[in-house]
Amino acid sequence: MPDTAMPSQSLPALPTGLLDALSGILGTRGVVTDLRDLEPHLSDWRGLYRGASPALIRPATTAELSACMRLLNAADVPVVPQGGNTSMVGGAMPDESGRQVIVSLSRMNRIRDLDPVDMTMVTEAGVILKTAQDAAAAAGCLFPLSLGAEGTATIGGVLATNAGGNTTVRYGNARDLMLGLEVVLPDGSVIEGLRRLRKDNTGYALRHLFVGAEGTLGFITAAVLRLFPRARSEATALCAVADEDAALALFRRFRDRDESAIRAFEYMSGQGMGFVLRHIEGAALPLAEPAEHYVLIDLASSRPDADLRGLLEAVLEGALEAGEVLDAALAESEAQRAALWRLREEHPEAQKREGASVKNDVSVPVSKVPELIRRSSEALRELIPGSRPVPFGHMGDGNIHMNLEQPEGMAPTDFLARSHEIMEAVNDVVRDLGGSFSAEHGVGRLKPDMLAAWRGGAELATMQAIKRALDPKGLMNPGKVLPA
Amino acid sequence: MPDTAMPSQSLPALPTGLLDALSGILGTRGVVTDLRDLEPHLSDWRGLYRGASPALIRPATTAELSACMRLLNAADVPVVPQGGNTSMVGGAMPDESGRQVIVSLSRMNRIRDLDPVDMTMVTEAGVILKTAQDAAAAAGCLFPLSLGAEGTATIGGVLATNAGGNTTVRYGNARDLMLGLEVVLPDGSVIEGLRRLRKDNTGYALRHLFVGAEGTLGFITAAVLRLFPRARSEATALCAVADEDAALALFRRFRDRDESAIRAFEYMSGQGMGFVLRHIEGAALPLAEPAEHYVLIDLASSRPDADLRGLLEAVLEGALEAGEVLDAALAESEAQRAALWRLREEHPEAQKREGASVKNDVSVPVSKVPELIRRSSEALRELIPGSRPVPFGHMGDGNIHMNLEQPEGMAPTDFLARSHEIMEAVNDVVRDLGGSFSAEHGVGRLKPDMLAAWRGGAELATMQAIKRALDPKGLMNPGKVLPA
Repeated sequence: MPDTAMPSQSLPALPTGLLDALSGILGTRGVVTDLRDLEPHLSDWRGLYRGASPALIRPATTAELSACMRLLNAADVPVVPQGGNTSMVGGAMPDESGRQVIVSLSRMNRIRDLDPVDMTMVTEAGVILKTAQDAAAAAGCLFPLSLGAEGTATIGGVLATNAGGNTTVRYGNARDLMLGLEVVLPDGSVIEGLRRLRKDNTGYALRHLFVGAEGTLGFITAAVLRLFPRARSEATALCAVADEDAALALFRRFRDRDESAIRAFEYMSGQGMGFVLRHIEGAALPLAEPAEHYVLIDLASSRPDADLRGLLEAVLEGALEAGEVLDAALAESEAQRAALWRLREEHPEAQKREGASVKNDVSVPVSKVPELIRRSSEALRELIPGSRPVPFGHMGDGNIHMNLEQPEGMAPTDFLARSHEIMEAVNDVVRDLGGSFSAEHGVGRLKPDMLAAWRGGAELATMQAIKRALDPKGLMNPGKVLPA
Repeated sequence: MPDTAMPSQSLPALPTGLLDALSGILGTRGVVTDLRDLEPHLSDWRGLYRGASPALIRPATTAELSACMRLLNAADVPVVPQGGNTSMVGGAMPDESGRQVIVSLSRMNRIRDLDPVDMTMVTEAGVILKTAQDAAAAAGCLFPLSLGAEGTATIGGVLATNAGGNTTVRYGNARDLMLGLEVVLPDGSVIEGLRRLRKDNTGYALRHLFVGAEGTLGFITAAVLRLFPRARSEATALCAVADEDAALALFRRFRDRDESAIRAFEYMSGQGMGFVLRHIEGAALPLAEPAEHYVLIDLASSRPDADLRGLLEAVLEGALEAGEVLDAALAESEAQRAALWRLREEHPEAQKREGASVKNDVSVPVSKVPELIRRSSEALRELIPGSRPVPFGHMGDGNIHMNLEQPEGMAPTDFLARSHEIMEAVNDVVRDLGGSFSAEHGVGRLKPDMLAAWRGGAELATMQAIKRALDPKGLMNPGKVLPA
């Protein structure tokens, strides 16, 4: 198939010798240069960036990737790892130079091992998150990482970005679900760290350096993941709460009673819920009347006799008496549970249908969440009169998606032109509260300037020293995470 | 007090100008050069090493340490951080050169903050672990890290070594209990990373690099630690089990039923229990007759109505019927609970009173623990006829202290002369089972050769590259972790 080996773009092509060498390693199927095939890999789903690339390569094994990286590194060719291409911050986008080769590990999609005694699963980077969840479930276990893009995002991607999601309050981020990694370094050498150990104090924790480095230090090619016993008791409720403080007080009531039972604790605003009820077909509020603030509580335990329903009722009763909870709907069936979750999960889609919006994925200490929501909502309304703050997300982690919906009737492009101002207005509040400008989405191509501004001095200098030490030529995902 | 500023040793002294400058920063109380005062800092409690040092410095603040490191780094003086000096592997010992300055952060012993809403505690490095536990308890919370040396070990030390202990199966290692760090780098610059955030994806996870680096990359001067709700239900039992496989099967029964309730799951051999019963005053076996294998199960929950007693009885009943458990004693009071734990905690002391012993702190995948115990016991008995393997420890983490007691009547020095052979005999089995030569004690000065042999190639090269990047002069705790 000579047409896949010949670039049809009017862009700087790779030297023919290099392309031939890559094809020699990967076969023609493993080297994509046709523009039509490259197209879906050149823009991100949020539409923030559009890049160019001379080729996408698709190694099927760690050894193939290693051999390719030796060649590319020797030829000083920059590379961009791309998993499911679901980054919120352009982390998997090549730049406009047309020089950066995209590397997809989608062919490395084997689950190499699943051991229900060790409670571990060894998966390759290209395995889809949902596939990994399903494999664990088929073995009677739980792989708890769960997020909106789970049908597309890959294990390599969620580890490289230290993805979070709904169950972080109980199980931690991707980092906390990982015991060992196999990594291909920029020069093609391979770290064989697929150890299935719960305890291993033998030198620097390199695995924690690659997790969250967003592909700027090397490729995660496979990982040992932790599994958990599956849930045998569940209880879910949607509550209308008095205000942001009441939402936090309710979280504390549950945490104090049984912190290990809290699988998720999600805050939603009356504004966001209104968008969901307006735009999402079949969405209905199971409460007597709308409120300004909602909380979704999801309890789970592997213990069949955990009586989470009793725990839920007891805690809610106390909170009702205290005036924190105004009304509550408890799921009586799996269908009702799914319907309650849908009200939360459709928030991004409902926002999109309502108009243009700007996302702010921020975190603060848990105690500061009410203040974050109040102060940044106020700052945003002041910045753009008529704009509609839509705070929602993971209250139990201090991670609120402090999103802003455009004013009714405003031209979306006019609103989006002010994205930077909007992000900065939220960030000013977040910084004052000791928070982070990126709780779970990472830095990518969107936020290296924020990294420089927030994590400057010795912290940034240390990151840069590590980058130079591991990738001296600066060829791994250039322009991401660290400021130029 | 001129005598504290004048070295009384016949060893290379620091230049007078440097000593004066350090005293100018720290006051005379902060610079110790008298040999009598230095003495307790020059040998480790296991008696493995004896070093020399021209001075010990005791900064009282991060700024003081920073200023000292600027001077020492400029003068090319190597430094050795020393916390509670409870390392099992000589990690806090200066070498014999007499050139290495010891740095103690014992004056940095403030708990800067404790927040029961955020469930975080900010402590300085010199805070004793037990003090941190007590402070959490006084606020109605739990700081769960617990280990034998907790009355002496410091927060700086347990973080630098990523300490484990009895509750790792539930709460993880020190690493997992840490949200943010303040770090003084070798050149004196300061990373201000005391963020109280559960989610923060802003660049490389530097905190995870310093945790477990054993002071070879910088000083941990303060940390944000995670707190948990205190236990309101507890249940503890000692069981005689049929064999190593039965011990693992019993662990699986509990994990499957409610993994979040398992606070500790400890294996002990009949050999080790025999030593405890023989040598420890007041120790008594609460079972009908001695066995070859024991398990200590400790359940805990923050939920007052968790009925852990019922869970314990139900699981043990099933295991008794299956022939896995032979006999069991359930603690009926706090005193009985303490007595059961004492049988486990006195294992090191009992071994010491029985004679000379060699420690092997190894880990394997949980599923391989029975094979580890059987195969390495056999290999050790073959290596030294009459020697007595004493495996005990954290079965639920795959971390067994595969210790060996000398044969009766053998001269202790003859036995200890074979320490290296003994460690290697265990390591051969561990390596074959995909394990680690150091589960929780670290590498220190004792095991850099093992690090080179086990973690060679790209893994070691990457660690060395990081060391060079962060400590280009090689002045931070030289000779530890990485091979020379």
